[in-house]
Amino acid sequence: MISIQSSTSKPFSPDSVQNGSELTLSGSVYRIRDMGSFAFIILRTARHLVQCVFDPLKCDFELSSIQENSTVRVTGIVKLDARAENGFELHINYITVLSTPYAQMPICINKKGLNISLETNLENRPYVLRNHRQRAVFKLQEGIVSGFRNHMLANGFTEIHSPKIVKTGAEGGANIFKMDYFGNKAYLAQSPQFYKQTMVGVFDRVFEIAPVYRAEKHNTSRHLNEYISLDFEMAYINDMYDVMAMETSMLRAVMNELETNYSPELKLLNVDLPKIDVIPALTFMEAKSILKESGHKIKNFYDFEPDEELAISEYIKKEYNSEFVFITHFPSSKRPFYAMDDKEEPDYALSFDLFFRGLEITTGGQRIHRYEEQVQKMKDKDLDPDEFESYLMIHKYGMPPHGGLGIGLERLLMKLLNQQNVREASLFPRDLSRLAP
Amino acid sequence: MISIQSSTSKPFSPDSVQNGSELTLSGSVYRIRDMGSFAFIILRTARHLVQCVFDPLKCDFELSSIQENSTVRVTGIVKLDARAENGFELHINYITVLSTPYAQMPICINKKGLNISLETNLENRPYVLRNHRQRAVFKLQEGIVSGFRNHMLANGFTEIHSPKIVKTGAEGGANIFKMDYFGNKAYLAQSPQFYKQTMVGVFDRVFEIAPVYRAEKHNTSRHLNEYISLDFEMAYINDMYDVMAMETSMLRAVMNELETNYSPELKLLNVDLPKIDVIPALTFMEAKSILKESGHKIKNFYDFEPDEELAISEYIKKEYNSEFVFITHFPSSKRPFYAMDDKEEPDYALSFDLFFRGLEITTGGQRIHRYEEQVQKMKDKDLDPDEFESYLMIHKYGMPPHGGLGIGLERLLMKLLNQQNVREASLFPRDLSRLAP
Repeated sequence: MISIQSSTSKPFSPDSVQNGSELTLSGSVYRIRDMGSFAFIILRTARHLVQCVFDPLKCDFELSSIQENSTVRVTGIVKLDARAENGFELHINYITVLSTPYAQMPICINKKGLNISLETNLENRPYVLRNHRQRAVFKLQEGIVSGFRNHMLANGFTEIHSPKIVKTGAEGGANIFKMDYFGNKAYLAQSPQFYKQTMVGVFDRVFEIAPVYRAEKHNTSRHLNEYISLDFEMAYINDMYDVMAMETSMLRAVMNELETNYSPELKLLNVDLPKIDVIPALTFMEAKSILKESGHKIKNFYDFEPDEELAISEYIKKEYNSEFVFITHFPSSKRPFYAMDDKEEPDYALSFDLFFRGLEITTGGQRIHRYEEQVQKMKDKDLDPDEFESYLMIHKYGMPPHGGLGIGLERLLMKLLNQQNVREASLFPRDLSRLAP
Repeated sequence: MISIQSSTSKPFSPDSVQNGSELTLSGSVYRIRDMGSFAFIILRTARHLVQCVFDPLKCDFELSSIQENSTVRVTGIVKLDARAENGFELHINYITVLSTPYAQMPICINKKGLNISLETNLENRPYVLRNHRQRAVFKLQEGIVSGFRNHMLANGFTEIHSPKIVKTGAEGGANIFKMDYFGNKAYLAQSPQFYKQTMVGVFDRVFEIAPVYRAEKHNTSRHLNEYISLDFEMAYINDMYDVMAMETSMLRAVMNELETNYSPELKLLNVDLPKIDVIPALTFMEAKSILKESGHKIKNFYDFEPDEELAISEYIKKEYNSEFVFITHFPSSKRPFYAMDDKEEPDYALSFDLFFRGLEITTGGQRIHRYEEQVQKMKDKDLDPDEFESYLMIHKYGMPPHGGLGIGLERLLMKLLNQQNVREASLFPRDLSRLAP
């Protein structure tokens, strides 16, 4: 028998290096630049590229014994140098090779620009992600998630985990994945809607960060069949504007988190973070009027077409200098059965979208909390309340006024980086034709 | 057009109340105790039960206008009182009723003990979870997740999100859910194994908190068909003991998080947190010898039966005063194809389990990082390397030595609370016969 102690291994941070001190780093040999009398060995560590200097007079090994994509442990002396990427160079004393690649990569990944198609990128994702700019995208994804979560926790929201194999779809429509569950028909959750409302009855405020599934049968640049939804739901609201205010402060917290803790990646990818002060809100009808006045021909009277989302966003950017805009009061007929209708204008739901740089990234609103109102709305939409027995328990036995929203993580990241295709913002995207890697 | 400001609503904390000050709280009326000349109205807020005092001489409404399970906004004056549950009472000035229940709950949930079967509990979960002790279970679940995540982030691990609809199962065996994916056969991920190894090649250290799926065809008290897996994977390890050390320090961080930030729930549920100093580790053969010496008849030579996990845990508790024990060097034939074998004794894998209070909660180990070794191991296990083309890219183009593990969140929570059935530790459990709620 032996005893396992706590781990003492700590990650490396370039901020803590001291001039003249010895430093040992592990990493992958990203690039070797032979300068003749010496060489640069660029080490790819967990987060940073570190410039190591090989001087044959000071090392008892040959440069040729080191190859790109080997993993190594390097020991050397720190020399602070403001010109170097992280403010220092490591002058190598010795290197231990830990592993060597079996083959050369078909795609050269140690350059700034990859010059490959998205298709090729996705096919070769397992190693293309090792490119320092590619991986920075997903470090920023982590930052968005951290910013979201920290804001929720600080505001008294409880984190929940709800099942993704479900008996009933929450969002309706045909875009739901079916599966066999021990002889019963089951679905993959389109959203955690029922569960987060249920948990609002328990904890007042809840959030969840988890995959959701949409069996979209078309390949577009803005749809994924599996994506990460950032959901929150909050009780004791006065109206849906409380939900929108919470999203506004959350988005500010996210941008602040990125600015504070992710500056290497923001710099590397040249990211222009949106400034968020207040966010303008238009009603659906106001937005359609603006479109019409600007000469746009309205074809869809219940929702917005992609070009309309773009046009509205451009208008708001120009007139109000905001890269975000809320649209409220959507036609009730196209919003889900759990959306509360406006008591004064029942054809419109107390429901909203948020557009960011021309793309819808959020749908949310106030939910029905009264039992009879929810049962009636189901009937009005030709749904059978008996199918929703356990969901309706929450209304039957008392629910506070509440509302919430869902944000598509990959869409938010995509627009933040001004990417052209949402697949770029997903580690391993799932679409009509893509199940691997 | 209107402008949406940031949210200013902050959650209530009992620590910040001041004697004699006015306080407004939102919540659900949990219990009314009519004492004749006055009444206690117990308010269920997001996290705390608050004792409110109704004095008919000071309020301009009748007690009969308030009913249990209504949601209300209460304004009153704080009176500090060490005997009260949160150290204060709220002497009511007025109450606004926000919603009233449609019906009375069939199960009385505002008592300490529920006195219902697990079956009844699960059927009525949407409102049974409103019981203050039931919900405390899931507040502690949040605490475990927070402790895990904070430890990972502080140690340079990057959070990732990998797809759950996959082309190939990672863990083998028959317990995998199948589904149709636009005419192709797909599966629900049994673990994020391939993806976390892939991302170790990108970020060196990664973790993921996400659902995984096991089509277990038996109903036991320790299996769920969908559960939350806490996964981490780390590069540049010397051996699997580095992974075990990281788990040891992570578990200490989790217990510390619970102790620091979840004391109301620990107290409410009378939780006895395990003390973690070092964790003993036995080899598989050592463990089997101990079982044999204590008169146990060994029937399974490749793994442990539930009664063996219990017997080993009891032995370690008695001899070494540890509620955790690692078992290392499992027979290679029963461990997955990505497990690295012990070079000196190739019949055993560099693979481990962690038992906690008699139950396996973790499987982990060192993984194969060399391409030829991984291809050979696949062939030895009658697997076709061509089926794993994108996974093998990571080995082919260079991988650091690495290892990792997965922890069943519900199992850890279950044993922490000394629950008898893992379903109690899942908000909405999925089992052979349960798809709803």
